[in-house]
Parts: sequence; structure tokens; C-alpha cells
Amino acid sequence: MFRDKNFQVTNIAELGEFKLIEHLTEGIKIKNSSTKKAVGDDAAVIKSAKTQVVTSDLLTEGIHFDLTYTPLKHLGYKAVVVNISDIYAMNAHPKQILVSIAVSGKISVEALEQLYEGIYLACDKYGVDLVGGDTSSSLTGMTISITAIGEAAKDKIVYRSGAKETDIICVSGDLGAAYMGLQLLEREKKIMQETGSSIQPDFAGKEYVLERFLKPEARKDIIEFFEKENIKPTSMIDISDGLSSELHHICKQSDVGCRIYNGKIPIDLTTGMLVEEFNLEALIPALNGGEDYELLFTLPVSDYDKIKDNKQIRVIGHIVDKSEGLSLVTEDGNFIDLKAQGWNHNETNL
Amino acid sequence: MFRDKNFQVTNIAELGEFKLIEHLTEGIKIKNSSTKKAVGDDAAVIKSAKTQVVTSDLLTEGIHFDLTYTPLKHLGYKAVVVNISDIYAMNAHPKQILVSIAVSGKISVEALEQLYEGIYLACDKYGVDLVGGDTSSSLTGMTISITAIGEAAKDKIVYRSGAKETDIICVSGDLGAAYMGLQLLEREKKIMQETGSSIQPDFAGKEYVLERFLKPEARKDIIEFFEKENIKPTSMIDISDGLSSELHHICKQSDVGCRIYNGKIPIDLTTGMLVEEFNLEALIPALNGGEDYELLFTLPVSDYDKIKDNKQIRVIGHIVDKSEGLSLVTEDGNFIDLKAQGWNHNETNL
Repeated sequence: MFRDKNFQVTNIAELGEFKLIEHLTEGIKIKNSSTKKAVGDDAAVIKSAKTQVVTSDLLTEGIHFDLTYTPLKHLGYKAVVVNISDIYAMNAHPKQILVSIAVSGKISVEALEQLYEGIYLACDKYGVDLVGGDTSSSLTGMTISITAIGEAAKDKIVYRSGAKETDIICVSGDLGAAYMGLQLLEREKKIMQETGSSIQPDFAGKEYVLERFLKPEARKDIIEFFEKENIKPTSMIDISDGLSSELHHICKQSDVGCRIYNGKIPIDLTTGMLVEEFNLEALIPALNGGEDYELLFTLPVSDYDKIKDNKQIRVIGHIVDKSEGLSLVTEDGNFIDLKAQGWNHNETNL
Repeated sequence: MFRDKNFQVTNIAELGEFKLIEHLTEGIKIKNSSTKKAVGDDAAVIKSAKTQVVTSDLLTEGIHFDLTYTPLKHLGYKAVVVNISDIYAMNAHPKQILVSIAVSGKISVEALEQLYEGIYLACDKYGVDLVGGDTSSSLTGMTISITAIGEAAKDKIVYRSGAKETDIICVSGDLGAAYMGLQLLEREKKIMQETGSSIQPDFAGKEYVLERFLKPEARKDIIEFFEKENIKPTSMIDISDGLSSELHHICKQSDVGCRIYNGKIPIDLTTGMLVEEFNLEALIPALNGGEDYELLFTLPVSDYDKIKDNKQIRVIGHIVDKSEGLSLVTEDGNFIDLKAQGWNHNETNL
């Protein structure tokens, strides 16, 4: 509903598959020396002296994104960010991506150009080369599949499995904002559908949560900070499914328990206000909302001094013995079990 | 219509996303020393001393495959083969794949197990490790996205761009069979839809073309033959869109022309018979059919002796100066321009 409809319209069939790919990938400038050959052959060619990390995600229309309120440029940007966030979560640097897209024949070349504009913008911001993928038809909605390849020195790579008892638990940035951005967009969509109104809703003062949902960033800065301060987390994961679910992954793979503190969880002011406006339980968006793309990591207590002055990092708790389970400690000292709630796309339409 | 419907039915929602991925990937045994960490973290970890080649493909239901006549096990197998065929086309060896799948909530766990059975079968046959990917929901049909990673010594990698005038043009195996397999399946599907019949059609004697379409193989043997005989093609591509289209890719990127000979194009007997039965022009399936996954490559004339006794390789023509264009020479000496026909999924429903 917020999309610019003033497209010039060229049907993709007019160009044909090969010309379309050529058109969308022409003028790419390679940024990384490890990229030996990008698009244009049966496969891309990469030569890295380091260890590589590889991750892949598939986004489908109506499940992972809603084109009624997602500008295509933002969608392209976000699709890249979501993937390279997984690379940073390994304490590595993203270097290459492959992008495969399936679209209905009805989509215009100009619409695809907007999508790719967002993809290239993210590539530029994060120093990543687009090296391959394909564009094909879909009978129904749009599907975007991205594979990201990153690299790091072997001994720098951080897994989910290294958290130790007494380690401190940290998160970057703040949590729950993307979830509230989504709630806001869904509410306005519903109102517009019910009233038939086409007036742009007034989102003044709520830009932060919208941007967190529509155009998130990956925490390159945190990985660079680790390098500078010579920090290597004992475990790390990116928060895509909500803090609670990610803590379960770390605790399960590290064979430990955790204790986090209600009052320590970083929540932005706008997020907090919207949580009240929507009558939600205060911590639901942070614990179970997802799509924050912040980093959750554990550090030996001895590293506390290195991070305590970084305003982008908050200590939210610590690792305990497995037998103590996973709990949230409320301000009045009660312990609440943290439930693992996967990112259930069927329920949340995210 | 040929699918075994006697599934035990467990809804994927009963398991949940994390358990489902765990279930589908449990018991994986890693085959390659370059695979340092497979599924289970934010990204897979790979360390290769060689140069890597990476390719990605997205397959969507109704466009790239039709579940009414494609057994899920075959589909999983084929989805892997299609991707690693691109790796072989670089004269490299596939080592890892990432598989992302989006399915409607209606699909059963048992159906996904069949799909993965085919994926693992291909992984075993070709010595590839499944290292990542994800499984998510789709509002409509099934989508499969696979990324394949291979490796080779840097100086062994073959591009599309090295073909030189006088080079001989070779293809492996035979062409057009997969296209006739598809025609056969589409014809029977139509008959069954029109008559409402549920009797399995009699495909006796036509197994070859069906298998070429439903369960193709990638030409690992040819790459191994090159190694053994110390052959390095000057250019190479896999035939996924039909011989004509692939020749255009090679000629364009090598800045040359080509001449191929009607009588030299390898066509299997069953394919030939079906071409007559379907009243098609004799060379259409080979030139424009696609999905053969054979290798098309060029060699210096001096290498002819090395390949002449290999029954799996046929010389079909030679490279000429760019000014001579791309032509097919018929038995009576006429020259026909080879048209680049992309694999138009909208038209052929493949």
C-alpha cells in the first residue's frame, strides 16, 4: 500500500531470461580479491586463504514478506542483510552472495530493478560481491533465495557451542523493535483494507520501529569492535527468532543453562510505548518477536572490562549449570522459565 | 499421478521448524575433509586449499517441476544433480551443498523425508556433503533452492570464454531425451485429466527418456576422464537449456563462431522414435529441448586422439571465426543459423 506505483512497465518476457540477468547484473564492480569470477559462467570462482562460512536463506512472499507494505528496494536490502547477519554471527566477514529470485511473469523489469537496487545498496554497505544466482519464473508469489559466503581466520570462528558456566551473556543494540514495526504495519494494512482508504497512515515518531522491520542492519560494527579489542566470544548467534529461542540454541549446543534479568534487556523507548499501545506483555517482542538481527553472545567474565564502555553492548545475564535450566529473573526476584518459541511463520505471518 | 499416496501423514507443524530440520538432517556423515562444520550453527564452515566454484539454482513448483508426475525422491535427487552439473561444467568437483526448501503447511513430514532421501542419495553418489540451508513455509507451492560448492586447482578451472578458432566441439552422452521424457509425461497427464482415468500409463520401452527427465545424472565420469587423460577443455558449459543456447553462450563469451553438423549430434534411438511419434522436427529436442545435463566443451584439434576412443564423447563440429556466425550444417550441405532459445519456462512449463 505504500509502494510507489508509478513504475514504467516493461514486461520481463520482453527481455527474456538471459538479457534480464545481464541487465540486472551489468556494471558490477568486484570489491574483494577473493572473488575471481562473478556472474556470467556456470559457477562463480572464489579463492580464499582463510576459512569460509556459508549460509543460505529462502524468503517467500506472504510468509516472510508482504509486498503490500514492503518497498521492493527495502526487501532487496533486507534479504541481503538477513543473510550476512548469519556470517557476522560466526565472527566472520561476508565477502560474496548469490541471489536467486523467482517472480511471476506479471512483474515488471522496473520492479526487479528496484529490488536489485536494494541488493546492491546492501552489497556496497557491507563490502560484499554479488557473484551468482538466477532469475526464473514463479506461478504465484515472489521467492528470494540468498546464499552468503564469508571468511575468517580459523581460530576466530565462533560457534553456538562454547558458552561456559559463569560467562556473561551480552546483546547488541535493542530488541523487539522490528516486531513492533510489523504490528504497526499490519494494523494499518487492516484498517486500510476495512475502510478502503488509500491515505498514507501517519507514522510520525514511529520511524525507528518501521526501519528496524523494513530495513534492518547487520552488526558489522560489533565484529569490528571484537577485532579491535581482541575479544573472541565463547559463543554467538544472531537474533532472528527472538532472544528466548536463540538462548535455547546456545544453551542446548553449549550444554549449559542461563539466567537473564528482566530489567537488563535493552528495549528502545518507541518500542516500549508501542508495546503499551498494543496492550502486549512488556517482554514479548524482545523475547519472542524476532527479526532484530542483533548479536547474542557470551564472554568470559574477565572480558567485562573490554566491553563495559561500549554503549551498543548490554550484559543481560550469565551462563549457569545445565541443571538450573533457562530462566528470566523478574524485578521482584521471581524466576520464569524461558520457553523456546521458534519463529512460527504460520502464526505470525512474518 | 504416479506418486505413491500411501504416506503415513505427520503434519510438519506437529514437529515445528527446529525439530523438523533436526529430523531431516540427523545422522549425516561428513565425506569431505574441507567440510569443518555442517548443519547446526548460523553458517557452515569450510576450509579448502583449492579454488572454489559456487553456483545456485531455484526450482519452483509448476515451473521447474510438476508434482503430479514427479516422485519426491526423484525431485530431491534431480535438484542436487542440476546444481552439481554446473560445478562439473567448471571442470571442478562438487564438495558441499546447501538446501533451502519452502513448502505449504499441508505437506507431510513423510513427504519431506522422501524428498531428502533423494537429496542424500545424490549426495552419496557424488561425494557431496549437505552442510546447510533451511526449511520454511510457503503459502502456495514448493520451492527448492540449492547452492553447490566445488573445488579445483586454479589452473584446471574451465570457463565459457576460452574457445579458439579450429577447436573441435564435443558433447557427452546424447541429447534431447529429457525433453521427450517430458513430452511423454505431459501427454499422459493430459489424457488422464481428460479421461479421469487413474490407470498407470504403460511406458514400457520408454524408460530411458523418462529417467533422463526424472532422474538425470551429472557427468562426473567425463571430468574424471579429463583428469586421467590430462585434458583441459578450452571452454565448457553444461547443457541445461538445449545445445543451441549453450553454443551461443560459449561463442559469445569466447568471441567466436561455430559450425556443427546435423548428422553428428548424438541422439538416442528411443528419443528418435518418440520425435517421430510426436511429429516433431528431428533436431528440436536436441537443439532447444534442454535439461540434458550433458557437457558441451571445446578442445584443441591436437587433443582429438585423446578422446576419439571414448564412446561417451562425440565431436559435433568446430569453432570458426566470429564473422561466420553460428550454424548447423545439414546432410545436404545447407547452412542453418542456430538460434539462441533460452529455456523459456513460461512456454514449456519445465
